[in-house]
Formats: sequence, C-alpha cells, structure tokens
Amino acid sequence: MKAHLTRRYRFSASHRLHSTEMSEEENRRVYGKCNNPYGHGHNYALEVTVAGQVDARTGMVCDLVELDDFVGREVLERFGHENLNTLALFEHLVPTTENLCAEIYRVLAGGFRTAAVEKVRLEETMMNSFEYCGDAELGTGRCVQL
Amino acid sequence: MKAHLTRRYRFSASHRLHSTEMSEEENRRVYGKCNNPYGHGHNYALEVTVAGQVDARTGMVCDLVELDDFVGREVLERFGHENLNTLALFEHLVPTTENLCAEIYRVLAGGFRTAAVEKVRLEETMMNSFEYCGDAELGTGRCVQL
Amino acid sequence: MKAHLTRRYRFSASHRLHSTEMSEEENRRVYGKCNNPYGHGHNYALEVTVAGQVDARTGMVCDLVELDDFVGREVLERFGHENLNTLALFEHLVPTTENLCAEIYRVLAGGFRTAAVEKVRLEETMMNSFEYCGDAELGTGRCVQL
Amino acid sequence: MKAHLTRRYRFSASHRLHSTEMSEEENRRVYGKCNNPYGHGHNYALEVTVAGQVDARTGMVCDLVELDDFVGREVLERFGHENLNTLALFEHLVPTTENLCAEIYRVLAGGFRTAAVEKVRLEETMMNSFEYCGDAELGTGRCVQL
Amino acid sequence: MKAHLTRRYRFSASHRLHSTEMSEEENRRVYGKCNNPYGHGHNYALEVTVAGQVDARTGMVCDLVELDDFVGREVLERFGHENLNTLALFEHLVPTTENLCAEIYRVLAGGFRTAAVEKVRLEETMMNSFEYCGDAELGTGRCVQL
Amino acid sequence: MKAHLTRRYRFSASHRLHSTEMSEEENRRVYGKCNNPYGHGHNYALEVTVAGQVDARTGMVCDLVELDDFVGREVLERFGHENLNTLALFEHLVPTTENLCAEIYRVLAGGFRTAAVEKVRLEETMMNSFEYCGDAELGTGRCVQL
Repeated sequence: MKAHLTRRYRFSASHRLHSTEMSEEENRRVYGKCNNPYGHGHNYALEVTVAGQVDARTGMVCDLVELDDFVGREVLERFGHENLNTLALFEHLVPTTENLCAEIYRVLAGGFRTAAVEKVRLEETMMNSFEYCGDAELGTGRCVQL
Repeated sequence: MKAHLTRRYRFSASHRLHSTEMSEEENRRVYGKCNNPYGHGHNYALEVTVAGQVDARTGMVCDLVELDDFVGREVLERFGHENLNTLALFEHLVPTTENLCAEIYRVLAGGFRTAAVEKVRLEETMMNSFEYCGDAELGTGRCVQL
Repeated sequence: MKAHLTRRYRFSASHRLHSTEMSEEENRRVYGKCNNPYGHGHNYALEVTVAGQVDARTGMVCDLVELDDFVGREVLERFGHENLNTLALFEHLVPTTENLCAEIYRVLAGGFRTAAVEKVRLEETMMNSFEYCGDAELGTGRCVQL
Repeated sequence: MKAHLTRRYRFSASHRLHSTEMSEEENRRVYGKCNNPYGHGHNYALEVTVAGQVDARTGMVCDLVELDDFVGREVLERFGHENLNTLALFEHLVPTTENLCAEIYRVLAGGFRTAAVEKVRLEETMMNSFEYCGDAELGTGRCVQL
Repeated sequence: MKAHLTRRYRFSASHRLHSTEMSEEENRRVYGKCNNPYGHGHNYALEVTVAGQVDARTGMVCDLVELDDFVGREVLERFGHENLNTLALFEHLVPTTENLCAEIYRVLAGGFRTAAVEKVRLEETMMNSFEYCGDAELGTGRCVQL
Repeated sequence: MKAHLTRRYRFSASHRLHSTEMSEEENRRVYGKCNNPYGHGHNYALEVTVAGQVDARTGMVCDLVELDDFVGREVLERFGHENLNTLALFEHLVPTTENLCAEIYRVLAGGFRTAAVEKVRLEETMMNSFEYCGDAELGTGRCVQL
C-alpha cells in the first residue's frame, strides 16, 4: 500500500535576477523589476512530496521528525533569511525559483534516505509556483497519456 | 532540466446552467439552483501549468510577461466581468466550469508558443475545481500505473 | 473529452497514535506527542478527485449532489466529530492519516458508481497532507517517466 | 465575561452595477467593467460577528444552530444563486457590496434575538471587503481615540 | 507612535462539549455532535495582538522571540496535542473555544510583561472564530460609537 | 450610512534589520537572523481600510480606481521589488515592518483625498502582521471600554 506525503515549509530570502551572460540592457528586458540592482525578496513556501509503502506497524510513510530534521538542516538553514545571490551555489547560476527548486530537489533526492523524494514544489508568491522532479525525460505531469 | 511553472489568475463572471436539450423540469432537476433563470456568479481562479526546459542562460521555463500578456488578452479580457451565457461560445454549449476549463485549455494549448501548456485548472469556488489537459485518451492522473 | 473534478470537504475528529505491536517506549519515540494517552484532534480537509467524460448534454463530469450524498453518508457521517480510535476500523489499525486516507479511497472507489474515483487527498493540518490512489504498483506521481 | 463570535458563510450571486440616476456614459465611467449590461458574479464570503456574555452553564456566546438557521433562511436563501438586480430590494438601489452588506446587517441586527449582532463583513473578492455596523455616527474603527 | 502586532500560532487538541450541570438529554440538545462521548478535535489557530509604542531605536513594538517563548511555554506546551477535558482547568468548566480563548487571554495579559496584550483571537475551524479582550464591560468592537 | 472598505495589495521587497545606534553584537542579539548582512525578503500583503458615507447615488464608499491609482503610484511603485535599506526613508530608520506600515499610513492619510484612510495593516509573513492608524493616543483596538 503506497501513499504520498506532502509536507509544507516556509522560509524568507532575497534575490536579484541577473545573468552575467547577458548585457545590462538584456538583463533589464528579460527580468524587468526583478533585475533591480539591490534585489528584493519573497516568503517562499516549499512543499516536499515523498512516496512509499505505508509501514504496516506504524501506519506511516515516513517519520516526519527525520524529514523535518533533514529539510531544516539542508534547506531552511542554508537558504532561510539569506540573500541568495551571495551563496556559492548562485555564483554562476541565476537564482530564479526554477533553479532554487531544482537544487532543493537534488539535495533531498540525493541525501534523504528514509523515503523516496518524488517532487519538490516551490511557491515564490501566491501567483507563481514551480515544480521539479528530476532530470529524466519526463512526461506531461498530472494527466499522462498511457 | 525540465520544470513546471504554474501561474494563477483570477476573474469574475456569471452564468446560468441550462441545456436546450433538456426540458425545464429536467434542467431544474440536473442543475438545481444553478438553473435559476437570471443566473448567479463566481470568482474563478485559473491556474495555468506550463512545462519546459529551464533555459540555461536565463534560468527560466517561460517568460512570465509573455504568458501574462497571452492569458490577459485571450482569456481574462474575453471572460472577465462577463455573463458567460451571452458569449458566442456558449450559444449551444452549457457554460459549466468543465466546458469553460476545456475551452481555456484549447485557447492556450493552441495559441501560446513560448512554452508547452500542460494543464489548466479552474476553481469555481473553494470547494470545487476542474482540470483539463487535452482530448487524448488519458491515464489516471497524479498517480499513474506504469 | 475527459476532465477531472475535485471536490473539497471538511470534518473534525480526534485520534491517538499508538500501536499495540510496539512497546510504550517505542510508541513514544515513534509518535512523540501524538502518542499522548488521551488523544488530540484535527480539522481534516478531504479532497476527492473523480475523472470522466464530460457529458455532452449536461456539460458535467459528475452530478455533485450524488457525490455529496455519497461522501456525506459514507465518510463525513462516519468519521466527523468522532474519536477515530473508538471505531471498529481502527481497533487493530493505527489511525494515522495515511490509513484514514486509504480507507476513504477504498470506500469511494468501491462504492461510488457515478464517476471514477481517481485520488483521495487528506490534509491533517495545513503543513501535512496525504494522497492515496489505490493498491496497484504505482508510478511516481505528478511527473512520470514515459 | 463578554466575548465575540465570528461565523463565516459563503454564497454565489451575480450583479450589474448600474444607477438609474446616472447617464449611460456616467455609469460606464463610474463602474467600468462592472457596468457590463449582462452582469458578472462573485463568490461572496460573509462574516457575522455577534457579541455577548459567555453563558456560565454552556460556555457559549450563542447557539450556532440558531445563528445558522437564521442566516440560512434570511440571507443565504434570499441572495444565494441569485441575480441581485432582479430582487425587489435592488429595484431602486445599486447592488454594490456596500449596499448588500448594510442590508444583511439590518436583517440580522433587526431580527436575530439570541445574541447581539455587532458587525457584518462581506468579501466580494479576496482583494475587496466591506464592513457595516449600523447607522449611528461611528468612530474610526479598530483603533479608536478615547 | 503606537502600533499593533498580531502573531499567529497553531496547535491541535481534542475536546468534548459536556456540562455536568445539564442532563444527558440537554447536553445532546445543546452541543449536538460535539457532545459525542469520546470527543473530537481541531487544529486551532491562535492570534495574539499586542499594542505598544514602536521603540525608536529598534523600530519594534515587541521582541518576537520573547513573545514566542512565552506563548510556547504557557500556551502551546499546555494545550497542544492534549485532550482538553483531561486538564485541571476544564474539570468544572466546559472546554468550549470561548472558555479556552478567555483562559489564553488571562494567561497572556497577566503574565507577559514585554508589551500589552490587547486581544486574543482563536479559530476553531475556518468557519468559527472567537475573540476575547478582558472582563471589563466592553463596547461594540470594531465600529464604536463615540 | 457609514461603511468600511478594505482593499488588499501585494508587493515583494527585501530588508536587513540593523540599527546604527546599536553595536554589532546588540544588533545580532535583537534581530537574530534578520540582521544577516546581505538581507532577506518578504511578500508583503498590504490592507488599506477607508471609511466613509456610502454615496446614495453610486452605492460606493470610495472609487476603487482612484484608490488603486494612488496606492500604486505612492506605495507599490516606491517599495515593490526594492531593497528597503537603499531607500532614503530608511537611511536613518530601521526598515522594520512597524516602520514601513506607519510610513504607508502617513502617505495615504496625508495624501489620499477621496475617502478617509482609517487603518493600514501590513503582513510580513502569514504569521506576522502589523497595524497602524495614526499618532494620536489610541485606545485598545477592537474591544474598547466606553
């Protein structure tokens, strides 16, 4: 009996969207106000979905304490209350929410051993969210053609 | 590296559920209060999900300005602050949220060229939502049997 | 033309997480404060997703009155305002939200005949939710590899 | 021991903002798209706040069943799933949310006898809400100068 | 320069509404399903509003760490993951949300010294909330007649 | 007939809490992670409440287009997508949400002429919000003793 568990976390950070591979003018055109030189910020909401067998003895897919400890240490400590552009990860990578979401997926999928990390969803604002579930050539999401 | 972006929009409209293929009595039985002759309305929330490669230079799946322009012009202008029953589209089609959702999907999937439109989700109220992702014979959604 | 309808319901109940197959100490370690002998409770939010052809005449996937009647009678009446541990179902089963979610799926998938029940999602709190979509060997959810 | 209870309700309706005291052009200028001749609609959220002594025996300010019955019969039945412009109340009154909110306050304050109705708040969309608490010359709300 | 700060907390607990001063039949009539002998539960949301001068040096009304420590120790530890009926406080007091809200107000107003506790608001479900601001003979809330 | 209208806006910005009047150590103690040298950010939600007579002809308290224009030009343009610490206003003032909220109130109360600005509420995160309603010696808010 396989089930999915989604756990929601929150952290605040700032970023400036600016690519060293583009001219100043192109940066302004592509990123608009998000290219503002001093940055701006967001309250990010992170949803981590793990999948697995429901343990017959405990009735649980995953020990939440272990998941919270891992996410707290590897994600919230690292990105919370930070200016993303000052982190080593984003030295040569634009700190878009797409790139941040993919990095969080890689950290979790690569390091969390208690249950299979299936998907990471990151809300930048209540109007924008992003999902990433690994580098494989993927299908079309929720409604798939079989 | 493929990711999914979901953008949320809102618009208000009114509709009356009434089918010319059914008798007055059948209409009342099938649609209940939604068959009220003068209509009622909703604050619709629209979620458009696009999928695509994260551009290595910009770090983005899709230029949001282009998406907003397209959705604004082709969807929000057309349906926002309207009585759906008075539109040509619904002259011979009942303006249920299922039909509205499918129409919005078709407009977006057929016309937006910047990224692949994967899914359209339309909330009629906070208790009801609908999803549509094209006319192919589809699988069972989120949890698929492979 | 196949679409998905998701309907949201709410009910309040209490539970104590405690497994008769584990020692007192192991129960405390595994469930933490949720093992508190007198229980605690939640406002559960239940989302039922059905999928089906949009009826060409009515423009609907499923008659909501029939879905509401079924869910009301078979789920909300049975679990709402109850202490889950006192129900026959949980006499030998830990009333985790995983197990409750799977039971609700089974009741709906096995008994509701108007449309195909595709998925059941159960929120325990705004930070935790669970999804279940049947006992088949399932794929990896939203983003599937084809 | 006096406390305040706020109960939330929801209903959907449609309206057209149009004043018979203004020219067509003035109506269009004042109400913009809300003056669209065929109307549009909203999911209204209604919050009713009552105040009173907490009954020492029951621990309650107000029997919710009585409040729900009254609001259901006098407000939700009357306005839910209706085109507000077709109601007698709005024959000579523009169905703005201000006017609807004040009417709901009057119905509740004048007719509900179980507890004192203190305030009615009506959300038109998640961006707009209105409050009304009677016709007296009122102070400046939440932060009052004494 | 006086401002108001509202901080939101969450805890889960269970309760049974039952008064020893009423007959079994009266209890069932007054409390309905909430009188169920084994109880049920809620995810309570607690909002604490403090008011005070904005400190000219720090720009803050109140040190949030101190508020969180106090609320955590005196409220969340005491009521979180508990069956309210088993607590000494509710031995002779019905654990309605009105009574719980007033108790939390008294604990905070009587013990928190960093800033003035102005109001406590407690949500039992998304449809019901309660406010308490002390035992004085109070006015009519948000809109006061001066 | 006096009513209250509350309009909600959103903007994203970044800030660093740091007071030039305190030592490095004191800044770290008072502001914790919010003192991080490179700043972090938030999605602020702004609620502006205006009060006034409901115009008998239009049925409205305030023309929303005028309010939106004023707030857009004087608040959202000025603070949206900015690093608050780089603005002249915060050269000698710590950019706490208390100070930002009071500034927004002053701009609106001092400049918006269409209706009386009664209160400004600013959410920093879903757990923290602040309210300001002017510099007068104020009462105790929602529940006032008369």
